[in-house]
Amino acid sequence: MAAAARGLWVTFEGGDGAGKTTQAALLEDWLREDGRTVVRTREPGGTEVGVLIREIVLHHRGEVAPRAEALLYAADRAHHVATLVRPALARGEVVIQDRYLDSSVAYQGAGRILDATEIRDLSLWAAEGALPDLTVLLDLDPASARARLDADDKPFDRLEAEQSDFHARVRAGFLALAAAEPDRFLVLDASLPPGELAAAVRARVASALDGSSP
Amino acid sequence: MAAAARGLWVTFEGGDGAGKTTQAALLEDWLREDGRTVVRTREPGGTEVGVLIREIVLHHRGEVAPRAEALLYAADRAHHVATLVRPALARGEVVIQDRYLDSSVAYQGAGRILDATEIRDLSLWAAEGALPDLTVLLDLDPASARARLDADDKPFDRLEAEQSDFHARVRAGFLALAAAEPDRFLVLDASLPPGELAAAVRARVASALDGSSP
Repeated sequence: MAAAARGLWVTFEGGDGAGKTTQAALLEDWLREDGRTVVRTREPGGTEVGVLIREIVLHHRGEVAPRAEALLYAADRAHHVATLVRPALARGEVVIQDRYLDSSVAYQGAGRILDATEIRDLSLWAAEGALPDLTVLLDLDPASARARLDADDKPFDRLEAEQSDFHARVRAGFLALAAAEPDRFLVLDASLPPGELAAAVRARVASALDGSSP
Repeated sequence: MAAAARGLWVTFEGGDGAGKTTQAALLEDWLREDGRTVVRTREPGGTEVGVLIREIVLHHRGEVAPRAEALLYAADRAHHVATLVRPALARGEVVIQDRYLDSSVAYQGAGRILDATEIRDLSLWAAEGALPDLTVLLDLDPASARARLDADDKPFDRLEAEQSDFHARVRAGFLALAAAEPDRFLVLDASLPPGELAAAVRARVASALDGSSP
């Protein structure tokens, strides 16, 4: 989409520990040095209403019915896109966002409680069909992600093994989403050095801002 | 549905001032005297999570994006049905509920911001398709409802005329829903004396509890 007409919307996806925050910050710095107006945001909780919604989900952890939880996240998304993302894009700004509907689909699909397609449809209804111009998937095998998050080298117990299986399913879900929409996704090996990853992201963003095909 | 297998779920619908609270209380008293276990509840706000959701919608009145608001109400519904209504019915109890998805559809349809069919589909997804055994629609023309709610006999100004038009659309919406599902709905003229209305509700509930066709 041409940058002049409306800004650029970039989302970062991937498991915890994949480096989303680092890469989002590096991209923000580079764009600001280039004179761009940047909005850094996230889901859930990117708005005042979203913070209240996030508190409900977190404070009642395990006690919120699965469909209620999915609808709360969708409500956060609807408010976030309508009141923050769309207005910023309309002003020609660059929105850099930590997690969007791909996370909902990948995590719900891995949890296997609700149907992933229904979650995607719900998210798209919430956001009136809005999809990012670019989604950077920072792909990392769960063992490496865990090593980054937890320096302790204790052996896996049963719960941890189940968690590892869950994170493997999340990763597979993200990769399937990227394969289905290759034009929107940039998949990067998150085990590469941060500087290399940042350069790859910048190249793709620069191409999008120039209005040329990536 | 047979009362022995699972309780009975009765919802009251209609505009404000139609007498839903009075009729729900009269029905509850009659059922309790008959030895039934009754759960009186409402949407939104029938659960702890629902109260938190209701606070978000009310405290941010006019500032919550329309789809976010619809999703928040649907989240309240999902949690309410999953954690309160279904368990009570499974225990064989009678659930008497002030407002359910018919209110969402009638009010959204009257407001004309979102599509009423989408709202109904959203509610049904939230509630996994759960519909009441009986829905009592207390039908009242908006002028009479207003006279009940506001004893002052001041002339209508422009805003009040618009509100009157809105309430006329809500009423038409409820009547259309009742016409589409005549087996589920009992439509009563809410201008009748409360005792007469209560007798009509009791007759229909007794018939349902006996397992015979109404």
